[in-house]
Amino acid sequence: MLTDTRGVYIVTQTPFAADGATDLASIDTLIDFYSSHGADGFTVLGVAGEAAKLTPAEALAVAGRFIARAGGKPVIVGVSNASVAQLAELTAQVMDLGAAGVMIAPPTGLKTEEELFAYFAGVFARIGDVPTVLQDFPFSTGVWMSVPSICRLVREFPQIQVLKEEDLPSITKITKLRESLDRRIAILTGNNAMFLPLEMGRGIDGPMAGFSHPEMLSGVYRLYTQGKVEEAHALFDSYLPLLSYENQSQWGVAVRKEVLRRRGAIACAAMRQPGPRLTPVDIGEIDLLLRQLQRRLAAA
Amino acid sequence: MLTDTRGVYIVTQTPFAADGATDLASIDTLIDFYSSHGADGFTVLGVAGEAAKLTPAEALAVAGRFIARAGGKPVIVGVSNASVAQLAELTAQVMDLGAAGVMIAPPTGLKTEEELFAYFAGVFARIGDVPTVLQDFPFSTGVWMSVPSICRLVREFPQIQVLKEEDLPSITKITKLRESLDRRIAILTGNNAMFLPLEMGRGIDGPMAGFSHPEMLSGVYRLYTQGKVEEAHALFDSYLPLLSYENQSQWGVAVRKEVLRRRGAIACAAMRQPGPRLTPVDIGEIDLLLRQLQRRLAAA
Amino acid sequence: MLTDTRGVYIVTQTPFAADGATDLASIDTLIDFYSSHGADGFTVLGVAGEAAKLTPAEALAVAGRFIARAGGKPVIVGVSNASVAQLAELTAQVMDLGAAGVMIAPPTGLKTEEELFAYFAGVFARIGDVPTVLQDFPFSTGVWMSVPSICRLVREFPQIQVLKEEDLPSITKITKLRESLDRRIAILTGNNAMFLPLEMGRGIDGPMAGFSHPEMLSGVYRLYTQGKVEEAHALFDSYLPLLSYENQSQWGVAVRKEVLRRRGAIACAAMRQPGPRLTPVDIGEIDLLLRQLQRRLAAA
Amino acid sequence: MLTDTRGVYIVTQTPFAADGATDLASIDTLIDFYSSHGADGFTVLGVAGEAAKLTPAEALAVAGRFIARAGGKPVIVGVSNASVAQLAELTAQVMDLGAAGVMIAPPTGLKTEEELFAYFAGVFARIGDVPTVLQDFPFSTGVWMSVPSICRLVREFPQIQVLKEEDLPSITKITKLRESLDRRIAILTGNNAMFLPLEMGRGIDGPMAGFSHPEMLSGVYRLYTQGKVEEAHALFDSYLPLLSYENQSQWGVAVRKEVLRRRGAIACAAMRQPGPRLTPVDIGEIDLLLRQLQRRLAAA
Repeated sequence: MLTDTRGVYIVTQTPFAADGATDLASIDTLIDFYSSHGADGFTVLGVAGEAAKLTPAEALAVAGRFIARAGGKPVIVGVSNASVAQLAELTAQVMDLGAAGVMIAPPTGLKTEEELFAYFAGVFARIGDVPTVLQDFPFSTGVWMSVPSICRLVREFPQIQVLKEEDLPSITKITKLRESLDRRIAILTGNNAMFLPLEMGRGIDGPMAGFSHPEMLSGVYRLYTQGKVEEAHALFDSYLPLLSYENQSQWGVAVRKEVLRRRGAIACAAMRQPGPRLTPVDIGEIDLLLRQLQRRLAAA
Repeated sequence: MLTDTRGVYIVTQTPFAADGATDLASIDTLIDFYSSHGADGFTVLGVAGEAAKLTPAEALAVAGRFIARAGGKPVIVGVSNASVAQLAELTAQVMDLGAAGVMIAPPTGLKTEEELFAYFAGVFARIGDVPTVLQDFPFSTGVWMSVPSICRLVREFPQIQVLKEEDLPSITKITKLRESLDRRIAILTGNNAMFLPLEMGRGIDGPMAGFSHPEMLSGVYRLYTQGKVEEAHALFDSYLPLLSYENQSQWGVAVRKEVLRRRGAIACAAMRQPGPRLTPVDIGEIDLLLRQLQRRLAAA
Repeated sequence: MLTDTRGVYIVTQTPFAADGATDLASIDTLIDFYSSHGADGFTVLGVAGEAAKLTPAEALAVAGRFIARAGGKPVIVGVSNASVAQLAELTAQVMDLGAAGVMIAPPTGLKTEEELFAYFAGVFARIGDVPTVLQDFPFSTGVWMSVPSICRLVREFPQIQVLKEEDLPSITKITKLRESLDRRIAILTGNNAMFLPLEMGRGIDGPMAGFSHPEMLSGVYRLYTQGKVEEAHALFDSYLPLLSYENQSQWGVAVRKEVLRRRGAIACAAMRQPGPRLTPVDIGEIDLLLRQLQRRLAAA
Repeated sequence: MLTDTRGVYIVTQTPFAADGATDLASIDTLIDFYSSHGADGFTVLGVAGEAAKLTPAEALAVAGRFIARAGGKPVIVGVSNASVAQLAELTAQVMDLGAAGVMIAPPTGLKTEEELFAYFAGVFARIGDVPTVLQDFPFSTGVWMSVPSICRLVREFPQIQVLKEEDLPSITKITKLRESLDRRIAILTGNNAMFLPLEMGRGIDGPMAGFSHPEMLSGVYRLYTQGKVEEAHALFDSYLPLLSYENQSQWGVAVRKEVLRRRGAIACAAMRQPGPRLTPVDIGEIDLLLRQLQRRLAAA
């Protein structure tokens, strides 16, 4: 059961070679890097993982490689798709490979809460009893789910065991959700962890986010769960300038991949096209931000 | 009480002079034209009335002139506004002038049903006990209201006495609404009356629409309410090519004003800028469509 | 070369069995039905063909069956996809099977004309020299292309040999396109052919649309190209009430499939879920509309 | 001429009393507060100033009070409006009162660059030779302007003397704009100044943003223009946790008003309804963030 999920779930990048081919070997080094910096689990094929640029066969190969290397740590696979048929096909395949569950966001174009419920009823009729992370990411999907709607989804569909909450403001929504949910589910938060320590204070079970320095995510999580609130904030604040820099949608993903490459986690920083490419000016800013980060960490 | 509304409500044009000034004198001829072709009431300052191009002072002057000339027939005033303060101000002013009620569509940007209810709670707290037409026109507002949501709004806010239904398909929604509403309200339909006889068969109380030939609207309504279903359809079908031609959003409004000008209802066909202007090719099509309409009417 | 395309291209339905499985046998009867009612070519896997509900393997099987049965008439395959990788894969597969070309609409989410050009540059770099129909269907994609933008796309990408124009108003846009395009391409129109005879008068090369009565599409096209303008309009007008009824987005597709089933073109009217299902009230309206159509045709 | 604008332009809040009435007296204390913390100019009636909740008369009164108290510092007035008539009316009124210029964002609903140019042509034909700040804030307006489009607007309309750039990523767009603009205009940046020092490095002329601690904005600006890049970043980073907390759209405005109230800048923190209200949990977070800010400033 994923309802007891807690800890640090890393939203993984998908490594590509310079020519745009998937780089499966880098998946191994990447997941080892994440694990050595405190990851408790992984979420693959998310928005930041460039999932929408893959063919179904590539998506399956990437997910399979992550699962194989995860060493038993849970792997959640993003299966959101405009086609329920494709969603169901990938779900069956990755569950066979050993995924811990799937993550589903409602598709762009759902217009009312009535349509939202009909959609998930249809999905769960197709995929059956699969542990599911409901992703609430309206700025990406264009589908806005109120707290009462999320509570009703959780009430009606036992498959929903985790909520990935990345509406904004997340903090006030988390408080309302914790007051309103009828049964215990895990709540993890995304938005590149931009509000992580405050979200911990509001009652989440950990981050589900990507960052070039996952040791910050795990560090803040450990400190906060040990009751060291001020220390958790101080650690977070040290990384915030870089975190905010990476929090610039797909362009921020390009930055993150460049820093992961510098740290040896992946062989090549390229994003699959169409996607942003970094300029020398961008690289100079990364240098500056990393230098300042090192200075703050040394001073602390 | 508007809950017993039935009949033919004409969505009025706002007449402008060639230089873009409001043409109040043409309001008198226009409303006389509508009345002589079977209008039972009027809806002014709607989308097709170019309301969004007026200053508050102009809007008030236009509404006041319509009310003064309506000869006691009910006038509904569209007061939808991104600013609740402006909505409330115009509502108070037109109710003082003798409007029968106001029409309100939810503003662009409302994202969940929770926000929808909060919005109308705030509006009705401000405007008080004013008879209100709820406008369901998602293609214009971007706000999609499900049947359960509309029923809940009607349940909670007694001010809602009429629903102007112009979602698509309207016909299936009307059937669901009639099955689901807890109390009797009037339902009138818009979308330029493109589905009027079918909507009559689904249980509406009449059209709330604009057309250059309002005698079609009143004719279909009378025939249908007399049980002459096939005749109602036949009359409607005769006008459908022209109706469909006018059903091309703001460009269709330009067509409608040109035909109304030809029929003597208004002095000038101009729309206030920014807005479409007709070309000689467009005028040639209007000539063709009117010629064919006359032929069909003569044959019938 | 598709630049000389002219005639009647039918946008095909995808037949499903009652349990939602693809019904390949009905593809044969369907394409024979279309051909016997005047089709000159076919467009498969469009929005009205429920393409978004298929897996990639199903899409390929459906397209292949249509191509095999088309008897040498050109088949255009819709390949629009949020993933360029999937778009390129399907394009290569269907061109191998003998498709005449592909149809591509810009994906939801493109925000500026700069992004639009970058998108098509990327697509054509991937798929190479494949004859392409550019689909301008903003109400479905959310991407609005101005006349200058379309002209620039046509100028820069020789692969674009046909424009499927289904913005609204289509008629004024067609006139501007014909005045502005630097080179000759074919223009066909969609929107369920709601403005077909007027669009013919504006200079299109034929319809690319679906309708339960394709004999209307071919009849209007033949009459108009023979210079019989008034007769073309008269024929069109006879069918307009039913055409308008089918022009209600996905619900209209359900109606169309029901009528195609009654006419023996497909075995089962079901849409794949999620999708609308017809009620007895809906069926009664279809009966009424077909009865009135027969009466008008008999009178003519 | 505003083309030489440089320095710190504060986006002002609009003070309200607890009952929702405008609090004009607090405008005086607020502008004095801003001035004493380094403001060089002001932008009033922006999105963060709750402009959309005011009546035209209230908007004029608020703008006039700000202008009267500004002591000769330039005041830019936001006049964006769905109605060009209202935009023109407010523009004429505030220019008469001594505004330095107006700020205009394209209205929601513009769909192509062709429509964008037609819109501004129409606006400038109405308002004439008024110094104008073009606001590029797509996340609020839904209108996305590419760099080539902005350059063309600047080329064609000499009234555009300043660009308020708040697309994301802003930094890469600023670099492209500085390379592409044909004539010198000022570029100021918004987005609550979340990327201020990096934007300074990309060539902007200062911030146009709101913050409860305007001394950060002016401090970063002064340090950066003195060539103290690392010091500018260090100062900025100290405030970043609070800045990010205030950068949560309208809820962030509620936070900002609460902090401004605590600092004596305004009498009451209330937002006009509909708008967010802070809870005790929110207040506790503000306490925490302010305490940590003080600690960092003391340590520096």
